[in-house]
Amino acid sequence: MIDYVLLKTKKGDFEGFIVPRSEFSHKGFVTLKLKDGYNINVKKTDIISMKTMKKRATLEKFPKINIKTRKGLPNISLISTGGTIASRVDYETGGVKMALSPEEIMFAVPEMQNFVNIDSVKQVFNMASEDIFPEQWIKIAKTIVNELNKGSRGVVITHGTDTMHYTSAALSFLVRTSKPIILTGAQRSTDRGSSDTFLNLLCAGIAAGRSDLGEVAIVFHENLEDDFCFAIRGTRARKMHTERRDAFRPISSLPLLRIDKKGGIERTSDFKIFSDEKAKLDGGFDRNVALLKVYPGADPKILDFYLEKGIKGIIIEGTGFGHVPTNTLKKTDSWISKVKKLVDNGIFVGITSQTIYGKTSSTVYRNLRVLSKTGAVHLSNMIPETAYVKLGWALSKEKDIDKLKKLMLTNIAGEISDRTEENWFLK
Amino acid sequence: MIDYVLLKTKKGDFEGFIVPRSEFSHKGFVTLKLKDGYNINVKKTDIISMKTMKKRATLEKFPKINIKTRKGLPNISLISTGGTIASRVDYETGGVKMALSPEEIMFAVPEMQNFVNIDSVKQVFNMASEDIFPEQWIKIAKTIVNELNKGSRGVVITHGTDTMHYTSAALSFLVRTSKPIILTGAQRSTDRGSSDTFLNLLCAGIAAGRSDLGEVAIVFHENLEDDFCFAIRGTRARKMHTERRDAFRPISSLPLLRIDKKGGIERTSDFKIFSDEKAKLDGGFDRNVALLKVYPGADPKILDFYLEKGIKGIIIEGTGFGHVPTNTLKKTDSWISKVKKLVDNGIFVGITSQTIYGKTSSTVYRNLRVLSKTGAVHLSNMIPETAYVKLGWALSKEKDIDKLKKLMLTNIAGEISDRTEENWFLK
Repeated sequence: MIDYVLLKTKKGDFEGFIVPRSEFSHKGFVTLKLKDGYNINVKKTDIISMKTMKKRATLEKFPKINIKTRKGLPNISLISTGGTIASRVDYETGGVKMALSPEEIMFAVPEMQNFVNIDSVKQVFNMASEDIFPEQWIKIAKTIVNELNKGSRGVVITHGTDTMHYTSAALSFLVRTSKPIILTGAQRSTDRGSSDTFLNLLCAGIAAGRSDLGEVAIVFHENLEDDFCFAIRGTRARKMHTERRDAFRPISSLPLLRIDKKGGIERTSDFKIFSDEKAKLDGGFDRNVALLKVYPGADPKILDFYLEKGIKGIIIEGTGFGHVPTNTLKKTDSWISKVKKLVDNGIFVGITSQTIYGKTSSTVYRNLRVLSKTGAVHLSNMIPETAYVKLGWALSKEKDIDKLKKLMLTNIAGEISDRTEENWFLK
Repeated sequence: MIDYVLLKTKKGDFEGFIVPRSEFSHKGFVTLKLKDGYNINVKKTDIISMKTMKKRATLEKFPKINIKTRKGLPNISLISTGGTIASRVDYETGGVKMALSPEEIMFAVPEMQNFVNIDSVKQVFNMASEDIFPEQWIKIAKTIVNELNKGSRGVVITHGTDTMHYTSAALSFLVRTSKPIILTGAQRSTDRGSSDTFLNLLCAGIAAGRSDLGEVAIVFHENLEDDFCFAIRGTRARKMHTERRDAFRPISSLPLLRIDKKGGIERTSDFKIFSDEKAKLDGGFDRNVALLKVYPGADPKILDFYLEKGIKGIIIEGTGFGHVPTNTLKKTDSWISKVKKLVDNGIFVGITSQTIYGKTSSTVYRNLRVLSKTGAVHLSNMIPETAYVKLGWALSKEKDIDKLKKLMLTNIAGEISDRTEENWFLK
């Protein structure tokens, strides 16, 4: 497999590596990676002959290509953390390979050379995103601050997609930046012909090196085509599909940028503008927090579990405008009484909505006022995942409950936003 | 307030009740409910004079209108459970009023008389949706079976919106039907000029009385206009916005029907076709179930809480394709080991995805296979809320774990569906 071949076809002759087929490959096509790094898809019915020039076994090292540092292009840093984008199926051992090197990126995305120089590559760790916990957020944040302050114009962080929006929210609070901090990843591994890696990396590079964004954002496919990406604010992104390449969507907000693979950058919302200020780490993460979704029949005793565990704060995903059930007969066993018990114990209780989109309210219905009266705090249109991340961060900075409440309700990184963006529902 | 007035305007003279203003009313307009039940909005700048004919205080009863039972029109039943649709602010006491009577519905939605006769109205209870628990699902299901078998062509159930999709999923499993069972509700109470009640009720009536649907569905605004509704399969609906009138969306599926307020019904997907078979109650709900979302930093000890509580089944909202964290160092404290402990104790563990859209997998990544090997079951594209409801229902029918697994993976009411509907992502 992945032999180096000469392919004679009805459309001309091509020389390159055969990209291994996967369950996601188009039937009826062969994908060839040409010497300049570009992929082409050749219709099987167009193939006249195929001649193997070199066997895989003889290709001991990754094929060399020349990377030139071009004068006048911005320098960016690449920080690799693992995930699908940094994995390649090893077709001999079945194992998973190392993080991408700059050579491999340029090989995968040769167009990148037209826009930026990748000046520095750091592999912080190589982890699947389901295993990236708050400890890892801090490590990534420290690496970013270091890279930016060493002179990078922006950073691209490659990351597994499943929890990328938790990490992007964490970096939004942990790093005070005025340069672009861009997270990206892939839904299909990089050695697959149909991988979304190429466009995502290219757009991320363009956003980090050439946009005037001074914030944290996730850059990912705008739609199923391979032409445009969105930059979505770090506190407003959510993975909304298990496998589509346009899985990341802005929630109750507009995208910040629309990025053309040819280098065009369209501003689609207001954001903090790039400047050359020093980046710095702000706060940490207090692990004594939890995220909890309520549902019909949910047992409020779960709140006792968290109380006994010693949490300092909890985010509840309520229903609708931010409800918990109010129907239990025995008052000491009700959701309301147990929420009150948490609050009375000095624990911060934040209320978000499991509808994902829209804004909570503490007043529209009587039952909302009942919940609010316990001291629980409705968090407006902050999405649940971001609220959880912000709470852990806020607790690392504020011990006083009143100051904590104030901080939770103060917009830090777009996590509480105004209502003009509602027309972007489900886009 | 709500005086009966004569309004002289530049556009003509109108007589009717002033609809009380609310925080949602259009500024610059006065809404008048005419004698025939229709609402009109009058521009304030068009008003020449206003004369009060009767004070609110003298209107002791709800204004009478004549409801004619029309021959040849289908008879439907209305089942009221509470929620915003069945509430009116009482502008004198500030309290909340009774469920809608057939008179009030016809008064609110006079167009209904052109399509169906409301033959029977049952108020099962009057509860806010955050308080509707599995016990209430059973009550509603019994009432539906009774109404259908007494001869109704279909039923409309009015329900609070926040948990309506949990109830629609429950009814999809609890009631074996071949007649339309239509849930609807409102995001704004019925006495507000801007209420979505009118279109939703009208479309629900049309779907129940005149469509060839033989399933449970939620009927709600297609978009922000007041012209069309969707019927969304009961197991595939989700409230996706706290307050928009088009908050209910079909998840990883197509809508079943598109309903025009003028009576037109367009079929937009395959479904079970109407027939006159008897309805029957199938199973109940075992309350020993739970729904749990994982996130970065989530403590797996929560699974011990559920084990000690004596649950028989749990649905986990994993990340991406259906992951739990695999990163804990001490093996007995890991998510994987604790999931295995549940499974080893005969507890069903079902895996869904918090992306909401898309399908889980037990094979694409190594960590998925690790989770799957514990005996946890990935539930394809079943949405988490529906999976929770189905599990409680399935446990009421099957005690044997292998039969339970088989039932959970068998499509009963569209909760596990094929992939052709993916183009409906985020619509």
